[in-house]
Amino acid sequence: MDSHVNQQQDLQVFTVGFFLAQLLGVLCVALAGAWSGHYLGGFAWQSVPSLQFNYHPLFMVIGLVFLYGDAILVYRVMRNERKKILKLIHAGLHTLAFIFVVVALKAVFDSHNLAANPIPNMYSLHSWLGLAAVVLFSLQFVCGFVSYLFPGVSQYWRAWYLPVHVYFGVVIYVLGIGACLMGITEKLIFSLKSDYKDLPGTAVLGNILGVVLVCFGILIVYLVTTPQFKRQSLPEEENLQLTPHSPIN
Amino acid sequence: MDSHVNQQQDLQVFTVGFFLAQLLGVLCVALAGAWSGHYLGGFAWQSVPSLQFNYHPLFMVIGLVFLYGDAILVYRVMRNERKKILKLIHAGLHTLAFIFVVVALKAVFDSHNLAANPIPNMYSLHSWLGLAAVVLFSLQFVCGFVSYLFPGVSQYWRAWYLPVHVYFGVVIYVLGIGACLMGITEKLIFSLKSDYKDLPGTAVLGNILGVVLVCFGILIVYLVTTPQFKRQSLPEEENLQLTPHSPIN
Repeated sequence: MDSHVNQQQDLQVFTVGFFLAQLLGVLCVALAGAWSGHYLGGFAWQSVPSLQFNYHPLFMVIGLVFLYGDAILVYRVMRNERKKILKLIHAGLHTLAFIFVVVALKAVFDSHNLAANPIPNMYSLHSWLGLAAVVLFSLQFVCGFVSYLFPGVSQYWRAWYLPVHVYFGVVIYVLGIGACLMGITEKLIFSLKSDYKDLPGTAVLGNILGVVLVCFGILIVYLVTTPQFKRQSLPEEENLQLTPHSPIN
Repeated sequence: MDSHVNQQQDLQVFTVGFFLAQLLGVLCVALAGAWSGHYLGGFAWQSVPSLQFNYHPLFMVIGLVFLYGDAILVYRVMRNERKKILKLIHAGLHTLAFIFVVVALKAVFDSHNLAANPIPNMYSLHSWLGLAAVVLFSLQFVCGFVSYLFPGVSQYWRAWYLPVHVYFGVVIYVLGIGACLMGITEKLIFSLKSDYKDLPGTAVLGNILGVVLVCFGILIVYLVTTPQFKRQSLPEEENLQLTPHSPIN
């Protein structure tokens, strides 16, 4: 088999994987919506703190999982688009993801602070690792923006930071999913207490949401890390390629 | 800079990372030991089911995290050893990991089933995803053993399965750590109930264990996936190399 046929086959596998990922991503959002919008009691803003909480899981799944997952795939999906455009779409999707994450954080802090008996913040492992994911996401956002969308930054720095940006992009994504799984666990035990073991609808749906989040994560990380799916530079970009071994210094 | 100097620098980074990983790994085991052996009340076998439980977190951290993490690193650490020897050490460490995992499972099932008021099994998200990790680990163990340690298996199959084995090796490892994080969350909420928010010693130690597990995982996955750290074949192995594009069919 020649390498052109191999490349075509790799692209077909990627395309199937990408559409499957979209299905799983939409399913994650739908399950999170049904879980928080129906089983956990629906939504309200500051008037009913316990219902304001319900924006937290839904918006984290939309922002930190679904939109973030698609943002890191952009380069491999729109392979024939110019790099500059891809960077802007990548940054745009991350901006949208970031907005959902901020509102999701506001929702959980409000729901704790505005409750009749205020609930302390930031004591659980979920909150520690979830906030770590959000802080790392913010740092990565700023560093990525400055490094790749500001015109004056040196090629040396851009090339040095690229593998760090890529690796931590995946780390933050996986950590975010891990935080979701701990969050689902926490919420189910706190709200159902010993009824969790009888697996009522809320518990089954929460568990299934967790399983689908893991499947979505496994697929996205596969699509974004498999070397054969990597976007090739367009002919006009060849001399602008950043690789760790470029003679850039 | 020539490529030999680059390679030497990469090896130095890997070596520092490897020793740091050993420190973090031993720290994980020590924290899990202190948590279950002291804060959760210490150990017993079937005579005291609630204390038999405490083998579960400790042995999962030893088996599914520490030993598993070192097992997947073997090829990059003992770079000058023959491939056959490396496979045997890889399989040996995984066998040891698997034994700890089986005893850890026995401990949790016994602690549920032998309790004065038996606790149902397999209802929580932690148990679903934790068991998924163990089942996938078992499948991977059998497939890896048959594919790479049985003499008669075709080169074509070995080459085809290699990237699957490598990717799922990392997936199972990360899923295992995720299951640990959910397990810590569950145990802290079930045992401390509303005292978790006051962060007593048990809670602080459990949370710190979770954070160190994540740091260990991030480092191990970095060391095992970074292309520059990949072991180069020894001269006598060159003609036996398995790559997806080898002319093997």
